[in-house]
Amino acid sequence: MTNQFNRRKFLQYTGMAGSAFFLPGKSTAAPAPLFTSDEIGLSKWELETPSLCLELEVMEYNLKKVHQNLQDTGIGVRPHIKTHKSPFLAKMQMEAGAVGVCAAKLSESEIMLENGISKVLMTGVNVTPEKIRKAMDLRKKHAGFIQAVDNPVNARDLQDAANAAGIIAEVVVDLDVIRRSGVPTGIPAVELAQLVDRAPNLRFMGILAYDGGAQHVKGHEARKARTVQTFEPVVETYESLVKSGLNVEIFSGAGTGTYDMMADIPGFTDVQVGSYLFMDAQYMAIGSKGNAALYDDFDPSLTVMTTIINTNHPNRLITDSGAKAFTINKPSGIVIGEPDFTYNAGSDEYGTITYTTANKSYQVGDRLEVIVPHCDPAINLYDRIYGIRRGKVEMIIPIMARGMSR
Amino acid sequence: MTNQFNRRKFLQYTGMAGSAFFLPGKSTAAPAPLFTSDEIGLSKWELETPSLCLELEVMEYNLKKVHQNLQDTGIGVRPHIKTHKSPFLAKMQMEAGAVGVCAAKLSESEIMLENGISKVLMTGVNVTPEKIRKAMDLRKKHAGFIQAVDNPVNARDLQDAANAAGIIAEVVVDLDVIRRSGVPTGIPAVELAQLVDRAPNLRFMGILAYDGGAQHVKGHEARKARTVQTFEPVVETYESLVKSGLNVEIFSGAGTGTYDMMADIPGFTDVQVGSYLFMDAQYMAIGSKGNAALYDDFDPSLTVMTTIINTNHPNRLITDSGAKAFTINKPSGIVIGEPDFTYNAGSDEYGTITYTTANKSYQVGDRLEVIVPHCDPAINLYDRIYGIRRGKVEMIIPIMARGMSR
Repeated sequence: MTNQFNRRKFLQYTGMAGSAFFLPGKSTAAPAPLFTSDEIGLSKWELETPSLCLELEVMEYNLKKVHQNLQDTGIGVRPHIKTHKSPFLAKMQMEAGAVGVCAAKLSESEIMLENGISKVLMTGVNVTPEKIRKAMDLRKKHAGFIQAVDNPVNARDLQDAANAAGIIAEVVVDLDVIRRSGVPTGIPAVELAQLVDRAPNLRFMGILAYDGGAQHVKGHEARKARTVQTFEPVVETYESLVKSGLNVEIFSGAGTGTYDMMADIPGFTDVQVGSYLFMDAQYMAIGSKGNAALYDDFDPSLTVMTTIINTNHPNRLITDSGAKAFTINKPSGIVIGEPDFTYNAGSDEYGTITYTTANKSYQVGDRLEVIVPHCDPAINLYDRIYGIRRGKVEMIIPIMARGMSR
Repeated sequence: MTNQFNRRKFLQYTGMAGSAFFLPGKSTAAPAPLFTSDEIGLSKWELETPSLCLELEVMEYNLKKVHQNLQDTGIGVRPHIKTHKSPFLAKMQMEAGAVGVCAAKLSESEIMLENGISKVLMTGVNVTPEKIRKAMDLRKKHAGFIQAVDNPVNARDLQDAANAAGIIAEVVVDLDVIRRSGVPTGIPAVELAQLVDRAPNLRFMGILAYDGGAQHVKGHEARKARTVQTFEPVVETYESLVKSGLNVEIFSGAGTGTYDMMADIPGFTDVQVGSYLFMDAQYMAIGSKGNAALYDDFDPSLTVMTTIINTNHPNRLITDSGAKAFTINKPSGIVIGEPDFTYNAGSDEYGTITYTTANKSYQVGDRLEVIVPHCDPAINLYDRIYGIRRGKVEMIIPIMARGMSR
């Protein structure tokens, strides 16, 4: 068992061929590529299962809807590609009017920038010398790459690396709103922003304030109340920054759950929506402004096609799609057309549906279509999304940044 | 946005280049390949994070240990590759004395057979015409491929497809033990076995009886009691099959939690252990025969290296590794060397550690090593495993069947 290697094989197996950082010397030319295969033109009901499917018309509706809903607010849209990890979908978002995209990780940012997406704000921080150096190399190649910082030591490291790379790097300060990432609001944040502003090789661009915990709070009023409270110290910090003479071009935050409640936040510029494109069982359950029972600002477009493999027990169907096809997030996947079905994806390889009433009698081999529990980690399980229009596979979208958590 | 395609790009993005079924016309030659990269030779503490690491000496210990522990029992080992999805590791298991391997899905089976693993028992069923046809094509190429069946309609479909392919296909009957897959024990199972036996193009090989629910029952005695009870109708079925003149060459089941309690089951031939190679927080918690507090038949070899990115709050550390690096399975990941740390991977992109006591003071940029909650779905998040020996990367193992749930 020795190391066997040739470049083609390496690229074949890795699934990370778009990454310059984590693979030796590649070059990716084509922006936002698509797969083709003999699956193009198949009915979605003919696809081998599990398959991740996207109803293109519904997705396109969602894509426009977020801009329509925000059009009179002055709030921009900076979609978070951590959700779909696909340059192809990011390109559609840019063409729909996004001011840029967000990425969570350096490897994701690179995939976007190297595949035709010119404006990427990385919301996570890079704290190790290697990642900081790589990030500055990426900024050197791509002027539209914005980095985040949340502590002064890291700001000095970014300054040194930008200097070494011979660039002036755009930087936003991430504010602590849920005791996760970020610098404390108030004086520490202002001092950090000033430190960035004074650093000769960094350019202060603004602030991030993402309340991840608010997105799935049930009830529009409850989310709004939480958001107003969360943003009190954030807005104070924003005002201190402005007062101190800093130019806060970017004041970014909010997600699919709170995108429509940011217009009253002074200085706020753009929402980092991700799930709006797809929806999932988690978001459908939170309720919208006009509908307490169902969040319906956006419609569900993303499903997993699954096959029934066992019907031996009454009121129970076994499918071929378990945790490796759905994740074990709750609430469970929603079986389309069968409101009484409960889908349990707790087994790695099998799904178990239990029910009291069904609209038809199911046989082994029948397919079911299931809305995923939580779209981000579900998409991260697949290498491709089947784009469906009028029931047929129109395109196969590569999830190029799948698995890229670095 | 039109379909762009060339073959190399397609293979690059897909990560499924080893699959003949789901990609057009490929050919894979080398068995059990490894990656090389400039990461070879790095300390595991220098790897970019999150990274999935395997302590090779510990893994090799586990690899031998299962055979040692079973050596006087007559029970064979048929490791389940759904856990690691790597032909390279499957090859090590075969060389260590496995009687063959198990795979859950058709796409996994193919990756194994096409990459040097000649004996694969697929424990899941194929129920759609397309998958049945592909399975028979695979059997035509690889004589060591054994398929499962759990209902008579499916047995007839397998017969027709084997006939169409011009082969005699080896088939095992999967028995229902936990109301998931399988035919009911007793008369339905015997009749199905007889149906397979009579089918001119099928060869009855034996039975499967996997009690997935028993594996994580806490306490060796409790697992044994459950196993004895579960296997009562299974053994009755086995005896009926033998009495009816059928040759039950294979009587396979059990996993890492129950592998050492099968010797008293009449006719039982082999255990389908998977996690034994790695261990995880779930298995460590179940207790072994000699140790109620810690399951220590096998030692933990698989970890995720993670980096601390925020230390702003007391008794709290934020890392760069969340649900996309670990899954959200419980119990949580175990931070090596810090018994008081609780690792919460509930956020997709971030880990949150809470503690009251720590053995050292941690800074942003420090690495931590974490045993995963549940090894199977965690491995399925990564494209490669870093094989570590004496602290350094010795090899990079491609997880070639990652994401293959079809």
